[in-house]
Amino acid sequence: MLDTVCWHDGAVRLIDQTRLPGEFVLLDCTTIEQLAEAIEVLRVRGAPAIGVSAAYGLALAARLSSADTHDALLADLQVAHDRLARTRPTAVNLFWALDRMMATARAARDADDPRALLLAEAEAIAVEDIAMCAAMGQHGAELMPAGARILTHCNAGALATVRHGTALAVIRAAHAQGKVAMVYADETRPLLQGARLTAWELHEDGIPVTLLTDNMAAHAMRQGMIDCVVVGADRIAANGDVANKIGTYGVAVLARHHGLPFYVAAPVSTFDFSLASGAGIPIEQRGPDEVRALGGVRTAPEVPVFNPAFDVTPAELVTAIITNAGVFRPPYSESLHGLRAT
Amino acid sequence: MLDTVCWHDGAVRLIDQTRLPGEFVLLDCTTIEQLAEAIEVLRVRGAPAIGVSAAYGLALAARLSSADTHDALLADLQVAHDRLARTRPTAVNLFWALDRMMATARAARDADDPRALLLAEAEAIAVEDIAMCAAMGQHGAELMPAGARILTHCNAGALATVRHGTALAVIRAAHAQGKVAMVYADETRPLLQGARLTAWELHEDGIPVTLLTDNMAAHAMRQGMIDCVVVGADRIAANGDVANKIGTYGVAVLARHHGLPFYVAAPVSTFDFSLASGAGIPIEQRGPDEVRALGGVRTAPEVPVFNPAFDVTPAELVTAIITNAGVFRPPYSESLHGLRAT
Repeated sequence: MLDTVCWHDGAVRLIDQTRLPGEFVLLDCTTIEQLAEAIEVLRVRGAPAIGVSAAYGLALAARLSSADTHDALLADLQVAHDRLARTRPTAVNLFWALDRMMATARAARDADDPRALLLAEAEAIAVEDIAMCAAMGQHGAELMPAGARILTHCNAGALATVRHGTALAVIRAAHAQGKVAMVYADETRPLLQGARLTAWELHEDGIPVTLLTDNMAAHAMRQGMIDCVVVGADRIAANGDVANKIGTYGVAVLARHHGLPFYVAAPVSTFDFSLASGAGIPIEQRGPDEVRALGGVRTAPEVPVFNPAFDVTPAELVTAIITNAGVFRPPYSESLHGLRAT
Repeated sequence: MLDTVCWHDGAVRLIDQTRLPGEFVLLDCTTIEQLAEAIEVLRVRGAPAIGVSAAYGLALAARLSSADTHDALLADLQVAHDRLARTRPTAVNLFWALDRMMATARAARDADDPRALLLAEAEAIAVEDIAMCAAMGQHGAELMPAGARILTHCNAGALATVRHGTALAVIRAAHAQGKVAMVYADETRPLLQGARLTAWELHEDGIPVTLLTDNMAAHAMRQGMIDCVVVGADRIAANGDVANKIGTYGVAVLARHHGLPFYVAAPVSTFDFSLASGAGIPIEQRGPDEVRALGGVRTAPEVPVFNPAFDVTPAELVTAIITNAGVFRPPYSESLHGLRAT
């Protein structure tokens, strides 16, 4: 598969994920507004992929800028930064990548070609993302039992990163080791990232996948069909509380009730040590028609809708957090301490 | 609202629930095959409504029969019975109603007009259903706190019965007493009975309702938005294990985790005392395209699908069972004993 996000001929090139699985369409974003819209309507989504997209976005902003002083360039970059920062509030990787790019820009005051430096930094973020996902896969695969039947939620796959994925990197690595009997993919309403993206990715890669609606996971667990759960994350607080796609928390409660391990896979850029707990993580609320319609078909009357895009799983329900820097276990306030210094 | 099922001019008249909420269409079934198809594709659904439909179905079969002996009439009825019994395996009310109608037919050997007797029996079943739902509503409303914020799953409403509903009869009665602050309706994938039917019914009746996807219920509970859960049932075993729409079991686990009461509302015809536990309840498996597509819109690739239509909630997660004969509490093997004799 092509990379989810890349730099192509002066544009930020994305796989348009709103068109999958029906069509495979590449979108070249040539303006910041076009990229911001793509993030807002989830043409590109997934915490790491959003971060890389935003990094390329600032490289694009630098290229589009006609500034001829460093301060003027910084001012143009700040405008692009602020627009991209307004797209989605929950995933911290977005802010992490934007901050890193702005720091690079500020440090480039005496550089001959600050625009080239910014593009190189964005490329570095993308390359690091690929390497982090590969490392996560190796660390996580060790936790998977032989003949594993793994439940996952939403898409924490290649499409949520540049390549490999987070949760799906673990699954891909375990599959390469011959350990995966079946992946159960929650369809993940309202936007069906599990049905449209995870099922598609795994099917394309020849990894056995079975699709189920979100409300079937409990029954599948009770029937003894699931050995463990692996999901991604959009932001992890210092105490190990995990914000991820809506529905993740419910799956974690169900896993605990059935005595199943619940693993979170995320790169270290997902940790937000400025937050003591998940209570401080902003939860994006989205519009009602995502719930009142499905695939463009109206399915409900004009009633009020509750549509939080994320939820927070408390650390006590998380068996382990799989990162590129290794596997962390409770108590997270202690085990994550080393990461905090980096 | 019109009755969900009734006898009209020699036909079984149904509200076609597959057309809601977009269109309100009445369907007059004039053959057993047409009625059986309507049950199979869920034009009429909900355990009590299926039972009443099947009862009218045998009245229709008698009317269509040209038999001129009692034995020939019984034979024609048996053919219709067998066809209707093959439609859906889980809800026990179907078999209860068919058995009751066949007993009436057998007892009519010396009757002047057995066809009229059968229609009268079907009408009696329908009238009893209305009365049972009203009684359930009164018993259940006493359990609802003031300002109740109630979560429900699927449609256990007027559309699942002749009038009033089971879980929604409880909610309607509590609302009439001024006790309902908000009903949260799980949309209930794959067929969206919560979004299409429950939200529509409550909205039509002016009862405050908020729609959410199934995977949002856990987050809503953790946010303190829910006071209790009320659902219907398709079959209840002697020990209190409850088969109901897929997803019910997960909601019950979540309610327990959050310390919320989990109530089941069902008429006494829902009990199957021939089964010691829920392990013996047959679970209908439905086709993959209910999950892979909606309204003709394809939402997933051609991957295998897990699509059980029901799940079983173990009795230990059920706070109380609300019936027309009163409210029953654990241990159900003891408390239900009196019902068993009736």
